[in-house]
Amino acid sequence: MSQKPVCVKDFEEHARRVLPKSIYDYYRSGADDQITLADNQAAFSRWRLYPRVLREVSHVDISTTVLGQKVSMPVCVAATAMQRMAHPDGEIATVKACQSAGIGMMLSSWATTSIDEVAKAAPEAVRWLQLYIYKDRELTKSLVLKAEREGYKGIFITVDTPYLGKRRNDIRNRFKLPSHLRMANFEMPDLAFSSKESYGEDSGLAVYVAKLIDPSLRWEDIAWVKSLTRLPVVVKGILRADDAIEAVTYGVDGILVSNHGARQLDCVVINAMMCIVEAVGGRVEVYLDGGVRRYFWDGEQGVSEVLELLREEFTLAMALCGMYSIFALPAFL
Amino acid sequence: MSQKPVCVKDFEEHARRVLPKSIYDYYRSGADDQITLADNQAAFSRWRLYPRVLREVSHVDISTTVLGQKVSMPVCVAATAMQRMAHPDGEIATVKACQSAGIGMMLSSWATTSIDEVAKAAPEAVRWLQLYIYKDRELTKSLVLKAEREGYKGIFITVDTPYLGKRRNDIRNRFKLPSHLRMANFEMPDLAFSSKESYGEDSGLAVYVAKLIDPSLRWEDIAWVKSLTRLPVVVKGILRADDAIEAVTYGVDGILVSNHGARQLDCVVINAMMCIVEAVGGRVEVYLDGGVRRYFWDGEQGVSEVLELLREEFTLAMALCGMYSIFALPAFL
Amino acid sequence: MSQKPVCVKDFEEHARRVLPKSIYDYYRSGADDQITLADNQAAFSRWRLYPRVLREVSHVDISTTVLGQKVSMPVCVAATAMQRMAHPDGEIATVKACQSAGIGMMLSSWATTSIDEVAKAAPEAVRWLQLYIYKDRELTKSLVLKAEREGYKGIFITVDTPYLGKRRNDIRNRFKLPSHLRMANFEMPDLAFSSKESYGEDSGLAVYVAKLIDPSLRWEDIAWVKSLTRLPVVVKGILRADDAIEAVTYGVDGILVSNHGARQLDCVVINAMMCIVEAVGGRVEVYLDGGVRRYFWDGEQGVSEVLELLREEFTLAMALCGMYSIFALPAFL
Amino acid sequence: MSQKPVCVKDFEEHARRVLPKSIYDYYRSGADDQITLADNQAAFSRWRLYPRVLREVSHVDISTTVLGQKVSMPVCVAATAMQRMAHPDGEIATVKACQSAGIGMMLSSWATTSIDEVAKAAPEAVRWLQLYIYKDRELTKSLVLKAEREGYKGIFITVDTPYLGKRRNDIRNRFKLPSHLRMANFEMPDLAFSSKESYGEDSGLAVYVAKLIDPSLRWEDIAWVKSLTRLPVVVKGILRADDAIEAVTYGVDGILVSNHGARQLDCVVINAMMCIVEAVGGRVEVYLDGGVRRYFWDGEQGVSEVLELLREEFTLAMALCGMYSIFALPAFL
Ligand SMILES: Cc1cc2nc3c(=O)[nH]c(=O)nc-3n(C[C@H](O)[C@H](O)[C@H](O)COP(=O)(O)O)c2cc1C
Ligand SMILES: Cc1cc2nc3c(=O)[nH]c(=O)nc-3n(C[C@H](O)[C@H](O)[C@H](O)COP(=O)(O)O)c2cc1C
Ligand SMILES: Cc1cc2nc3c(=O)[nH]c(=O)nc-3n(C[C@H](O)[C@H](O)[C@H](O)COP(=O)(O)O)c2cc1C
Ligand SMILES: Cc1cc2nc3c(=O)[nH]c(=O)nc-3n(C[C@H](O)[C@H](O)[C@H](O)COP(=O)(O)O)c2cc1C
Repeated sequence: MSQKPVCVKDFEEHARRVLPKSIYDYYRSGADDQITLADNQAAFSRWRLYPRVLREVSHVDISTTVLGQKVSMPVCVAATAMQRMAHPDGEIATVKACQSAGIGMMLSSWATTSIDEVAKAAPEAVRWLQLYIYKDRELTKSLVLKAEREGYKGIFITVDTPYLGKRRNDIRNRFKLPSHLRMANFEMPDLAFSSKESYGEDSGLAVYVAKLIDPSLRWEDIAWVKSLTRLPVVVKGILRADDAIEAVTYGVDGILVSNHGARQLDCVVINAMMCIVEAVGGRVEVYLDGGVRRYFWDGEQGVSEVLELLREEFTLAMALCGMYSIFALPAFL
Repeated sequence: MSQKPVCVKDFEEHARRVLPKSIYDYYRSGADDQITLADNQAAFSRWRLYPRVLREVSHVDISTTVLGQKVSMPVCVAATAMQRMAHPDGEIATVKACQSAGIGMMLSSWATTSIDEVAKAAPEAVRWLQLYIYKDRELTKSLVLKAEREGYKGIFITVDTPYLGKRRNDIRNRFKLPSHLRMANFEMPDLAFSSKESYGEDSGLAVYVAKLIDPSLRWEDIAWVKSLTRLPVVVKGILRADDAIEAVTYGVDGILVSNHGARQLDCVVINAMMCIVEAVGGRVEVYLDGGVRRYFWDGEQGVSEVLELLREEFTLAMALCGMYSIFALPAFL
Repeated sequence: MSQKPVCVKDFEEHARRVLPKSIYDYYRSGADDQITLADNQAAFSRWRLYPRVLREVSHVDISTTVLGQKVSMPVCVAATAMQRMAHPDGEIATVKACQSAGIGMMLSSWATTSIDEVAKAAPEAVRWLQLYIYKDRELTKSLVLKAEREGYKGIFITVDTPYLGKRRNDIRNRFKLPSHLRMANFEMPDLAFSSKESYGEDSGLAVYVAKLIDPSLRWEDIAWVKSLTRLPVVVKGILRADDAIEAVTYGVDGILVSNHGARQLDCVVINAMMCIVEAVGGRVEVYLDGGVRRYFWDGEQGVSEVLELLREEFTLAMALCGMYSIFALPAFL
Repeated sequence: MSQKPVCVKDFEEHARRVLPKSIYDYYRSGADDQITLADNQAAFSRWRLYPRVLREVSHVDISTTVLGQKVSMPVCVAATAMQRMAHPDGEIATVKACQSAGIGMMLSSWATTSIDEVAKAAPEAVRWLQLYIYKDRELTKSLVLKAEREGYKGIFITVDTPYLGKRRNDIRNRFKLPSHLRMANFEMPDLAFSSKESYGEDSGLAVYVAKLIDPSLRWEDIAWVKSLTRLPVVVKGILRADDAIEAVTYGVDGILVSNHGARQLDCVVINAMMCIVEAVGGRVEVYLDGGVRRYFWDGEQGVSEVLELLREEFTLAMALCGMYSIFALPAFL
C-alpha cells in the first residue's frame, strides 16, 4: 500500500487493486441485487450516538468475555471461507494476529487450513469452529470432535445456508478454488472443493452446497450437535425473535444475529438485533455481525493492522461517548 | 446474448441492444414523468424479508392454483400486447414456454396472434384472455365466446384503460405497428391497428383507444360479461379497497391488483395489495402485477429461460425463508 | 422548437436555449439555496393518486368557477412580472390565450403591458389584478380603481413580499429590465423600474422593492383595499392556518396558498393546503400555486399550446381516476 | 475573489482555491466518515419555516443579549483554533470585525494570537475565552485569570474533547502548524504546538491533545473553574438533556449545544436543541452551533463581509417570517 491506511476502506481499496477479479468478487459480493449489502453498512450510519460528557475517560476498558473466554475487545473475527486465496498464509495469519490481539477467531468449515494446523499455529488464541452440517453426519461429527480435541472453545453452527445465496458475479465467474488450494478439513476431492471437479456453468460453491450440505435441518439437529460435545454451541444466522426464543428453548449457548453479510438473500431484515436481545432477555449471549466491512490483508501483519485500527476506533468512540468500560454501557446509548 | 443471463436485468439489457428504439420504448415506457415506473420496482426493495431457519427445506413446493387450475409456480405471464414486434414467433413462443413451465398465460386482446392460433399452439397450457371492452359490444362478445370455445380458462377484463395513459416516448415516436403486423383478433384495418391507418402526430395506440375502446364502462358491464360465459371473470387494474369490495359485490371471481405497469397514470398508489387482501377477506382470489420487470425474448427458448430463472429465484427465496410450501406461507412474512 | 413539445418540461428546455441568461435566471430562480424550489415540485410527486375504476368517464367536465366567474378548467395563470422580456407580445399574448382557453389570467402589478391595454386586447377574458401595495397609497388606490373600471374581476393582494427574497443569480446578474422595456402601469422612471435608474451591485428588483413597496403592511391594509372597490379581494401568499383564519375574519373573498414559487424564503412550508382548507371550512375559496412549472412561450400560440397541454393532462388524469366532474371530486382522492 | 460573494458558500469556494491543502483540510474536515459533517447542514434544510404575513416588518430588530452583554444579532463567532494559518492577521482580524459588527467573539485556547493581544486589538468587543482544561491545572488557571483580567466576559469550557476526534485527512497530511506559527497563549514549545516537536505519523494535533489535555474531567472540574473567577461559565459540547440538567445542577451560566462541527465523533446526534431547551426550562441560556458553514477570510474586511451577509440574511428571514424582534419569536415558528 502506497500510504499508511487510516480506515478500513483503505484496506478494501488495496484488496480491489491486488486481488484477481474472481477472488475479489467472491469476497465482496452480496446476494441478488445487493440492496441489502449496501444497506448493511447504511444501517450503521443511520444510528445516532448520544455522547455523555465529563465522565473520567482517561482509562477506557473495552475488554469483555465471549462464551466465558476473555477477549480484549468486543470485536472478533467471523468465519470467512478459503482465506488462502487472498494470501499464502491464509487462516494462519489470521489466527496469529487474533492471538496477539487477544481476540477470538471463528474458523470456517471451509478453511484452506485445517482445524489442527490452525490450533498448532496459535495455541493461546481463543478459537471457535464455524460448522456447516453436511448430509454426511459422521463427517460432521468428526469436525466437531476434532475441534474439541484441538482446544477450540465453541461451535458456531451456520443455520442460514440450506442452499447458497445467488451471488451473480460468482455465477458469471464460475467461481471455484484456484487449482493449488483445497478446503483443508476434507480428504475426498469433492468434499475438498477441488477445482478438478466439474461444476457446470454455475458458481462452483453453489453446486458444492447443493450436493453436500443438508437443507433439511431442524432444531433437533442443533440438539444433536450439543449431544456430541461439551463445548458451548451457538447458532449463527438468526434474524427473528421467534427463532431466537426457539434457540434458547433448544439449549444453545449463544445467538449470532447475522444475515451472512447479505450473501444469502436480498432485502432481508437488518435491524433485528434490538428485538432479539429483548426476546432473549439475558438468558444466552447475543452477538452481531454484518456491515462491519470485510477486509483483506497482507499476512499476519496486515490482519494485525486492521485489528489495531478497529481497536483504536472503538476505544476512541467509547471515550468520546463518556463510557469507560463495556460493563458500564447502558442497553441503549 | 454474449454471456448466459443470470438475472432478469440481463434480458432487459439484451432487449435494449437488439430492438428498434420505438419498439423498445413502447415496451419499457411508463406514463408521464415515469415516477411510478421507477417506484414500482423500488417498492419491492423497500420490503424486508424475515427468514426463519431450520425448517426442513429440502423439498420446496411452489405450485399453487389460479381460478382452480394448477400452476407450477405463483408467477404467470400478464397480458402484453403485440409480442411479434419483439420476435417473429411472438405469442406462440410465450404460450409454448408457459405450457412447458406449467404456468398460466394471459393473452392480450391486442395480440399479434389470434385466440385460436394460440390455443392450437399450446393446447395443454392454462390460457386466459385479457379483454378490452370495445364500444362495439358484439365484437367484444365474440372475443369472449371464442376464448371459451378455444378452451381458455378465464377472462381478465382490463378496467384501468378508459383512455390510454400518456406515454411521452410513444408520442415522440408516433408509435404504430410495423407494417407487416396486425392485431390478429380483428379483421377490419382500423380495428387491427393497421399501420396504414392515419394517427396524426400522436401515439397511434392512444388514437386507437380513443376511437374504439369504451370509456363509459360501469360495473354493470362486468355483470354483462359474466352473463355471456361460464368462464370465471377477473377484473384487472384495481387499486382501492372500495373498488375491490364493489368487484366482489358484482360477482367477479378474482381481482388483479395492478397499476398497468405504471403505463396509465403517474403517481398512482403502488402498495394497495395488503389492504385489498384484507377488504376482500378471502371471498375471491387476489393477484398482483407491477414491478416484476418486463422482459423480452428470443422466441420460446428465451421465454423459457426467463421463466426458469424466476422459478429458481422464487424457490431459493422460499427455502432461505424457511418456507417449504406456498400453502404454509403466513399472510405476512 | 425542433420537435413538438409533449410536456411542460419541453417548453422549459426551449426557454433555456433561447432566452438570455439573466432573463432566464430571473424567470426560473428560487430564493437562497433553492431547496424549496426543488421541493415545490417534488411535493407533487410525493402525492399518490388512488384511482377508481368503471365510473363512466366518457365525458369529463373539468370546468369550475373562480370568484363567481366560469373557467373552463381549474388551472389559471398566476401573476408573473415583466412578460415582455420573454416575447414582444408579453402579457397581450398571455391574456389572449387565456381568453381562448376560457381561463382566468392574473395580471402582475409589474406587467410590461398596462391594465387597460390588457383589457382592450382580451375584453372577454376573466382578468384579475395582482396588487403590490406601494408606500404611496394614492398610487396603489389608482391601480385598484383602474382595474375595476377596466372590467377586472378581482384583486389579488400579494402579502408575502415586504422585501424581495434573496435570489442569488439576480444579484450576480445585477438584474434589471432591458432598456427598451418599462413596468407599464407607472409613469415615473423610478416607479417604472427604468433601466436608467441606478441599483448598485444588487438585484435591481430587490432595490426597487426596498425603496417603493410597503413592508409595514397589516391586516387593516387589506380592509382598506376592500373599502376602495366592489371587486372581490383575495390574499396571495398565505401559508398557515392561523393567517388563513385571520384572512376570513378580515373579510377576504379568497385565499391563494402560495410560497411565491419558492422565490421569497427558502425552507418554507409547502404542504399547507390541507390544513388551510380545513381551517377555512368552506367560508371562502382557497386556491393553490407553486410547483406547477413555470413556462415560457412563443407569443399567444405558445401560451395556448401550454394551456392545451395542461388541459389534456388534467382531463386524462380525471378520467383515469374515475372522476367525471370537478364537483364530484371528494376532498381527498 | 473574482466576483462579489453573495452567499457563505462563495467564501468557502474561495478558501478552497487559495489555501494550502493541509490547512484547508484542517479547517473543513469532520471526524471519521464525515456523515455527520454533511448531516449538520442537511439538518437545517430539513426544517420548515411557517411564515406569518402582514405583521408590520418595516423595522426588524435582531439584537439580543448573551450572558448579559448586548449583541447586535443572535449570531456570534465560535472558537476556531489557529486562525493565522488562514491570514496573517488571524484572530486580530476576527475580533476587530466582531467589534464593528457588535457581536461576540469566542477566542480559542489554541489561538495563534494571545488573550491580551486580542483584548488590546478590540477593547470594546464582547470577548469570551474558550477553555481547554489541561492536565496542568496551574496553567489552566492562569488562562482563566488572564481572560478575566483582560476584560473577557465569559469562559466557554469545551467538554467534548477528552481526546481529539479521528480526522482522516489530518492523519494523512500529518497536520501540524506551519513553522512560523505558535499557539500564542503558551511559552513552552510542546504546549505551543511548535512544529519542531515530533508527532510521528499521526495528526500532530491528536498527539498534542493526547499528551496535554485532561481526559479525566468530571463535573467537579467545572465547579473548580467557576471557583476561580467571577466570570460566567458556559459548557460547550452538550448533546443530551440529562447532561444539560447536570450542567444546571453544577451552576453553569449557559449551555452551548454543539457536536464540535462534527469533528469529534461521527453519527452523533444533531437535533438535540429542542429537548435540551425543554429540559433546561429557562434556568440558563442555551446556544447552538454546528452546520453554520465555516468560513475563511481576507483579514478583517473579509470577516466583516461574511458577518454582514449573515446579518442581512437573518434580518430578511425574520421579516419574511413576519417577526419584528428576537423577543417576539415564539418557541417554535
Ligand atoms: C468472503 C466471505 C466468506 C464467508 N464465509 C463464511 C463461511 O464459510 N461460513 C459462515 O458461516 N459464514 C461465512 N461468511 C459470513 C461471515 O461469517 C459473516 O456472517 C459476514 O461476513 C458478516 O458481514 P460483514 O462482512 O458485512 O460484517 C463469509 C463472509 C464473507 C464475506
Ligand atoms: C409492453 C406492455 C404491453 C402491455 N399490454 C397490455 C395489454 O394489452 N393489456 C393489458 O391489460 N395490460 C397490458 N400491459 C400491462 C401488463 O398486463 C401488466 O399489468 C404490467 O406489465 C405489470 O407491470 P410490470 O411489467 O412492471 O410487472 C402491458 C404492459 C407492457 C409492459
Ligand atoms: C418569473 C416570475 C415572476 C413572478 N412575478 C410575480 C409578481 O409580479 N407578483 C406576484 O404576486 N407573484 C409573482 N410570481 C409568483 C407567482 O405568481 C406564483 O406565486 C408562483 O410562480 C407559483 O409557483 P410555480 O411557478 O412554481 O407554480 C412570479 C413568479 C415567477 C416565476
Ligand atoms: C477549524 C476549526 C477549529 C476549531 N477549533 C476549536 C477550538 O479550538 N476549540 C473549540 O472548542 N472548538 C473548536 N471548533 C469547533 C467550533 O467552536 C464549533 O463548535 C463548530 O465549528 C461549529 O460547527 P460549524 O462550523 O459547522 O458551525 C473548531 C472548529 C473548526 C471548524
